[in-house]
Amino acid sequence: MNRLVHRDRALKSLTEHFPKDCLLLQKEDLIPYSFDATAIFQRLPLAVVFPRHVEDILWLLQWSKSNHISIIPRGSGTSLCGGAVPAENSIVLSMAKWTKILEIDPANLTLLVEPGVTTQAIQQEAEKYSLFYPPDPGSYKISTIGGNIGHNSGGIRGLKYGVTRNYVMGMEVVIPRGQVLWLGNKCMKDSAGYSLKDLFIGSEGTLGIVTKILLRLLPKPKARRLIVASFRSLEKASEASSAIIASALIPSAMEFLDQKTIHCIEEYSAAGFPKESEAVLLIESDGHPEAVQEEIIQISNIIKKYEPIEIKIAEDPTQQEKLWSARKVAFSALARKAPTVLLEDITVPRNVLAQMIRQIQKISQENGVEIAVYAHMGDGNLHPVFLANEKDSQLMTKINKAMKEVFLYAIELNGTITGEHGVGLAKKEFLPFQYSKESLELLKEIKNVLDPDHLLNPGKIFD
Amino acid sequence: MNRLVHRDRALKSLTEHFPKDCLLLQKEDLIPYSFDATAIFQRLPLAVVFPRHVEDILWLLQWSKSNHISIIPRGSGTSLCGGAVPAENSIVLSMAKWTKILEIDPANLTLLVEPGVTTQAIQQEAEKYSLFYPPDPGSYKISTIGGNIGHNSGGIRGLKYGVTRNYVMGMEVVIPRGQVLWLGNKCMKDSAGYSLKDLFIGSEGTLGIVTKILLRLLPKPKARRLIVASFRSLEKASEASSAIIASALIPSAMEFLDQKTIHCIEEYSAAGFPKESEAVLLIESDGHPEAVQEEIIQISNIIKKYEPIEIKIAEDPTQQEKLWSARKVAFSALARKAPTVLLEDITVPRNVLAQMIRQIQKISQENGVEIAVYAHMGDGNLHPVFLANEKDSQLMTKINKAMKEVFLYAIELNGTITGEHGVGLAKKEFLPFQYSKESLELLKEIKNVLDPDHLLNPGKIFD
Repeated sequence: MNRLVHRDRALKSLTEHFPKDCLLLQKEDLIPYSFDATAIFQRLPLAVVFPRHVEDILWLLQWSKSNHISIIPRGSGTSLCGGAVPAENSIVLSMAKWTKILEIDPANLTLLVEPGVTTQAIQQEAEKYSLFYPPDPGSYKISTIGGNIGHNSGGIRGLKYGVTRNYVMGMEVVIPRGQVLWLGNKCMKDSAGYSLKDLFIGSEGTLGIVTKILLRLLPKPKARRLIVASFRSLEKASEASSAIIASALIPSAMEFLDQKTIHCIEEYSAAGFPKESEAVLLIESDGHPEAVQEEIIQISNIIKKYEPIEIKIAEDPTQQEKLWSARKVAFSALARKAPTVLLEDITVPRNVLAQMIRQIQKISQENGVEIAVYAHMGDGNLHPVFLANEKDSQLMTKINKAMKEVFLYAIELNGTITGEHGVGLAKKEFLPFQYSKESLELLKEIKNVLDPDHLLNPGKIFD
Repeated sequence: MNRLVHRDRALKSLTEHFPKDCLLLQKEDLIPYSFDATAIFQRLPLAVVFPRHVEDILWLLQWSKSNHISIIPRGSGTSLCGGAVPAENSIVLSMAKWTKILEIDPANLTLLVEPGVTTQAIQQEAEKYSLFYPPDPGSYKISTIGGNIGHNSGGIRGLKYGVTRNYVMGMEVVIPRGQVLWLGNKCMKDSAGYSLKDLFIGSEGTLGIVTKILLRLLPKPKARRLIVASFRSLEKASEASSAIIASALIPSAMEFLDQKTIHCIEEYSAAGFPKESEAVLLIESDGHPEAVQEEIIQISNIIKKYEPIEIKIAEDPTQQEKLWSARKVAFSALARKAPTVLLEDITVPRNVLAQMIRQIQKISQENGVEIAVYAHMGDGNLHPVFLANEKDSQLMTKINKAMKEVFLYAIELNGTITGEHGVGLAKKEFLPFQYSKESLELLKEIKNVLDPDHLLNPGKIFD
């Protein structure tokens, strides 16, 4: 049978199975699903399907196998590694309508949700019970917990609170062979068998479709205070942050902004950072009020040794919110500066942070491309932001070269090409530099066990 | 060739490869390696080998494959699930001599060690730098970190600090196909590829031989205080502990002793618990001194609502140590009461702890077997201790029946048959009650990817 005829029949069977409001087929409706938050990738899917229940997902997996059309799972499409970009001959499976909060269990400090619930909605639900869900990716207002699990999302609190993996106690997942598995439980400890749950976390939608998620919550910290310090040199800022970690303090956040980022934020929102700042640190402490008070004083005393231009300690929640907002607009402020903005995501051991940032500056100069850097300094997670223009192929060639140099240097420092965004399409060519041939082979063999026909998100992480 | 001749030739080739001090072959030398800390299993290995380096392990894996003789990895042999008991036609690979601390990195708060280092040695090394390694299994003085990883060991601090998994940042592992993999890094965040590291943690030596381990350390808490409360009824103790968790307090430990355990401890060491106590809670708070002080008062106020017979707050570290020691002798105290003592390890959601304990008492009465219970109450991890006699087959039949009832009830409450000891030989027959057929099948398929010839620890977790 002709390939196009075959495809038309397959799509027709979708219209027969799904009601109209669960299916998009028109080009104009498909366009928003042809890309995600990664600027440089785009491909139209054949259709977008909104499954109503687990049975629909089982049906789709069977349909996918029979018709050799792959499935691209998608939440809000905030992926920064092309993780939700359609493959050739694929449909998008959107979990965005699965937004139910199924159960809050304050006695066990757990929350059961559907995968389409946003990170923010989870945080707000926890708040209602004076509880706390720490992972806090930059896209928290719209990113879904399903996507957070797929990429093992982090955020600014990784230093003290870890990442999504540390808060997933269980999940229901539908796997390509047509089975529904429940992995994990409400137990705080479980040593029964290999941790399949941990295999699915960070698997970028390549192994199964997560349909329910059981999260662990924490008591809400009673107090929270912010200190903002500006430095004349990157090295001083970096030494200060290393000294804080070496002093056995664990702030709840330690954010870094480089000069380029500072200037853009100033232009965008007049945050009031001193003009001569080469680096700014925003450091938050949370916990018991006395402990926070003491920690803020200790941090401030350490910072004073590194010749800061200015130290500001937020006096109240309003001022704190205002100071934080300067950090939170960083990406928006940078995004205005170029037609295409590529937000990257390396992590290095914390003792080589300054070395990595200086190297990024060197790579920027040598290649004649603009790279701003902001970072979750406390956990070594740097976000180099490449100011690009996808229509300028000469510039893009230079940017790709510079980006590769950044990744390879991070790997040279025993770092990782992605701390919290995932590999997806964007970084799969660099994974072989970080992984040994043998380890990469194992990833592929595990993929083959779970998804032997490569129905799910093909071409992501590896080919 | 005759099977025995073949075996003799295989053993001869061991003597040719290994110097005398790396190999045990005499029956009297093999006997200590024929069992572990699980009372009921025993089998002689064909030999015990102490590899000198990774090359020896690679050689042994090849030898194992060529000769169809399996390998039982072993640390200190403190497994409580028969995890280190030899299989038929197997040799023991002892990592007990791999005791080097390879690197402490205070700037990154990491520690690199060999697998034979004891948990205690790790804790002590961390202490030297005012750092802290939280996992604290009961066997910490002799259990090795390799074994801790194999079983994802926990201990009394799980509630606040999690388990071994939460502290493993990386590992070197030798897999049966003859490859040496390095998994993980010193980065606090890493989203590059499936988490192979998490697959090996808790895999009970069935997937690979861990040869180096990179651990995450924490700053040492500045203060630590203990409160001990005795209750007239189990329900009151249990309600008190639930109320503490529901009050958004996270003590660093919350231990429970039942009446039988209390009586045995009193006989053993005259700890001074009131005679009429049906349950005792030992609750520790750690962190900033002010926060600890406040938490102890809050905990004490909550406890007072549940009609305690007595509340003791340790006034100084010496008194604290003395009060803790009562808990620490629990197993030794119980072990004197019967020829065979079986220490079990279920975990349930914390809101059904009292229900689980009452059911254990009921099962004990109905089957006419003695079961004492102590528990890591804060994380729902119960240790029912069966007082048995392996030479009394009638009693053992009753005990097996009672044990099965305990496991099945834990599963009914959405708990797990093992919180921190692993499945091993002892609980593999119960895993199918906890796992779906499909999930169990996946475990086996993953085993087949890593160890297709079943060279490593065969018969553990599943057949």
